[in-house]
Amino acid sequence: MTAQFIPVDAFDLVVFGGTGDLAMRKLLPGLYRRCCDGQLTDDSRIIGIARSDLDDETYRSKVLEALHRYVADDVEPMLLERFLQRLHFVRLDAMQDDDWSPLHARLNGHDDRVRVFYLATGPSLFGPVAQKIARNELLTGNSRVVIEKPVGHDLASAEAINREIGEVLREDQIYRIDHYLGKETVQNLLSLRFANILFEPLWNSQAIEHVQITVAEDIGVGDRGGYYDRSGALRDMVQNHILQLLCLVAMEPPAALDASAVRDEKLKVLRSLRPITEFNINTHTVRGQYTAGAVHGEPVKGYLDELGTGGRSDTETYCVVKAEIDNWRWAGVPFYLRTGKRLAVHQSDIVIQFRAVPHSIFNEATSQIVPNRLLLRLQPDEGVKLYMMTKEPGPGGLRLKNVPLNLSYADTFVVRYPDAYERLLMDVVRGNPTLFMRKDEVSAAWTWIDPILKAWDALGTAPKPYPAGSWGPAAATALMARDNRSWLEEVV
Amino acid sequence: MTAQFIPVDAFDLVVFGGTGDLAMRKLLPGLYRRCCDGQLTDDSRIIGIARSDLDDETYRSKVLEALHRYVADDVEPMLLERFLQRLHFVRLDAMQDDDWSPLHARLNGHDDRVRVFYLATGPSLFGPVAQKIARNELLTGNSRVVIEKPVGHDLASAEAINREIGEVLREDQIYRIDHYLGKETVQNLLSLRFANILFEPLWNSQAIEHVQITVAEDIGVGDRGGYYDRSGALRDMVQNHILQLLCLVAMEPPAALDASAVRDEKLKVLRSLRPITEFNINTHTVRGQYTAGAVHGEPVKGYLDELGTGGRSDTETYCVVKAEIDNWRWAGVPFYLRTGKRLAVHQSDIVIQFRAVPHSIFNEATSQIVPNRLLLRLQPDEGVKLYMMTKEPGPGGLRLKNVPLNLSYADTFVVRYPDAYERLLMDVVRGNPTLFMRKDEVSAAWTWIDPILKAWDALGTAPKPYPAGSWGPAAATALMARDNRSWLEEVV
Repeated sequence: MTAQFIPVDAFDLVVFGGTGDLAMRKLLPGLYRRCCDGQLTDDSRIIGIARSDLDDETYRSKVLEALHRYVADDVEPMLLERFLQRLHFVRLDAMQDDDWSPLHARLNGHDDRVRVFYLATGPSLFGPVAQKIARNELLTGNSRVVIEKPVGHDLASAEAINREIGEVLREDQIYRIDHYLGKETVQNLLSLRFANILFEPLWNSQAIEHVQITVAEDIGVGDRGGYYDRSGALRDMVQNHILQLLCLVAMEPPAALDASAVRDEKLKVLRSLRPITEFNINTHTVRGQYTAGAVHGEPVKGYLDELGTGGRSDTETYCVVKAEIDNWRWAGVPFYLRTGKRLAVHQSDIVIQFRAVPHSIFNEATSQIVPNRLLLRLQPDEGVKLYMMTKEPGPGGLRLKNVPLNLSYADTFVVRYPDAYERLLMDVVRGNPTLFMRKDEVSAAWTWIDPILKAWDALGTAPKPYPAGSWGPAAATALMARDNRSWLEEVV
Repeated sequence: MTAQFIPVDAFDLVVFGGTGDLAMRKLLPGLYRRCCDGQLTDDSRIIGIARSDLDDETYRSKVLEALHRYVADDVEPMLLERFLQRLHFVRLDAMQDDDWSPLHARLNGHDDRVRVFYLATGPSLFGPVAQKIARNELLTGNSRVVIEKPVGHDLASAEAINREIGEVLREDQIYRIDHYLGKETVQNLLSLRFANILFEPLWNSQAIEHVQITVAEDIGVGDRGGYYDRSGALRDMVQNHILQLLCLVAMEPPAALDASAVRDEKLKVLRSLRPITEFNINTHTVRGQYTAGAVHGEPVKGYLDELGTGGRSDTETYCVVKAEIDNWRWAGVPFYLRTGKRLAVHQSDIVIQFRAVPHSIFNEATSQIVPNRLLLRLQPDEGVKLYMMTKEPGPGGLRLKNVPLNLSYADTFVVRYPDAYERLLMDVVRGNPTLFMRKDEVSAAWTWIDPILKAWDALGTAPKPYPAGSWGPAAATALMARDNRSWLEEVV
């Protein structure tokens, strides 16, 4: 491949939650890979923050261990050493005002470089930590703060967080990360739509019949049960990841691939979503909760057992939402959104289902025409496939066959797919917020999600049980069947 | 592959010119392969006709030799024997009335089966032989006659041939073969256009910028010089093959893939071609004639030397025609037609050049957008490629790359591509004339070609010399350059 990596400007990246799961699994491995590709300058620093009693050396050996586990085969001793030298550690309990001076000392004298605070912490700390950073005078003109999901659990709490952060940071300094937007496939979607004349004329209700977006997980809630039970699938997946994907599929062509233009267009989509309330909640949503079953042949517990509270819970671990976009482009084209835990597979897809040709000129006996379908797979194996009818070669007359064409890279590229965090971390340092969520997007998403939560609550809509390892409750199939459609449930 | 070959009905196929080049290179090898695939019934007969003094046995050994040469590796002794048993020979000088009784005797008693007369002879014999066949009472209700190109050398002579044949045969019994229409790629074009919703909405002046159709040969006129010098590239290639390809690209969707519907649509295209006359001949055509040069590194003679007449000749061995179709779909979209002998390569392509995207949202520095292009290759390696912009994988930002996607068979099919004659011969036996030319198509093509010939003649437009092994005269490049376009001249 021909891509040249231009080093980003020198930076200090301060990771709150520096010993946590996200840092060890994703952030540091991602930075290591960017380092290997020569994208980090030698004087750039990564400063882990935690309450543990570590120093630079012990932190480095902890990270080393993580790299061996999560980067595995690709670890090269020389490059590794180069990366570790960039790592530092500062012990700090963010809530203790006295603890902040060591960090201040470390950052002091580097005010000219890019400074990034990555809050890999619980959401309740986003506001407080941001405010402490400001009050301890760590914010330079070139400082950015990255926050993870969830930004709130409803509109009011999301706006409270955004307000709290907004008191000390300008909106353009706030990077609300959604790692789904860093995926290759998502960026390939933008390329397909806007770098080719082929798709955009078809990208509307004239040629597209419906869209499916599925984020299927095979794992259960694990030790996140406490958090998850207060959240549920709609808040945990649909409000952020899935709605963001919907926006990128549905948005009008932005005037440029820059943060304002793209986010303005996404916002318009969110604001065009038809409200789901008590009046249509039963035809437009399905809630589910997994019971004991087997995933990939292994017996697993049900949600309530896994939760361990012994009691009952009305939290959904699965949901379907039939979203409708009330604008000229998409009127009449439903977007079926689906996510769940303990499903048959770990697989995330966007399916663009095109309409059938208006009329077949072919011999129906030998040439059944299957409508075209564009499949964008986000995980586990990223890629884009276009299902097209082509002639089956051979002299047996004109027989058609539905063939999946690899649109992502054909056979041209043989390369490791980067993790989404690699791309997004570099975007933060480069100051490119295009693939991060703006405040008004978060609000608009919650504005649509809140009434769904309220309607479920008002009608007492209990989640329907589904066995772990299935594709969810039968009601999800029925919802599609009523529209004469069906879910893509093949592992392709 | 899953295609099942359904045997065609029992037939007698009588090949006039049964020992000729076409029979030995194409017809008999094609029939052999159809036999191998079980498509010929055991009682079907292939009867070679020639003036030579052969019998069934000597004819079979002659064919055997040809099969070893032209089918090569694929010859299997068992299957071979099975095929040879179907071969017969009748000595016959078509012009001698006394010679016809042996053929009559051979065919007698098989009146119920499909009877095909294949006139693999010079065009001057088409009418006379057809009339003899009729007068010797060899025509049954189930008889068909296949004729090869050229059907005439201008409108008047073509209509004379069609009239002469038409006196003894119904139009639906006449199969005017154009083997280009039997190519896999041509049938794939029909599949792409009409079995997918993706292309047809783009298949017009809104999205297509221009079309190129090239039939490039690396060979010279060889021992066909006598015929060729009276014909030239326009008559030899453009009037038939290239205009047929143009028709399939440009036609409106037929109501069905049957002979009337398809040929009606092709005819409409031919009748919509804007006339080229003295007034626009210089901007719309280029004539060329090859001089000595080198093809694939080997020195070769010029046309005049190869012709051996020692004199001069104004026959074009190369021509370009800028065709314009005056209808709603194609107004403003030129079809550049090009063919020549002794060019750099042996290669035939249809290039559908799409328009550029109306506006680029990408960073021009890293992401130059190349307009989409659909390339249909007819020879030497059949296939369909779509050039699309996709994201170059990797974390280096959104960099676009122009990637050729194989649309014909992806990696799904691994199969020998059948020769065009295989398909077309079976179509004759099955009585499916969809891929053969109707009388009115031939006339319409000549109606458009005649004024070009006349204008060249009236203006004394001499062919421009071009060295053998080049891509033709510079005037062809200039013609495109005036329209701000360029020929596809890469070997891809």
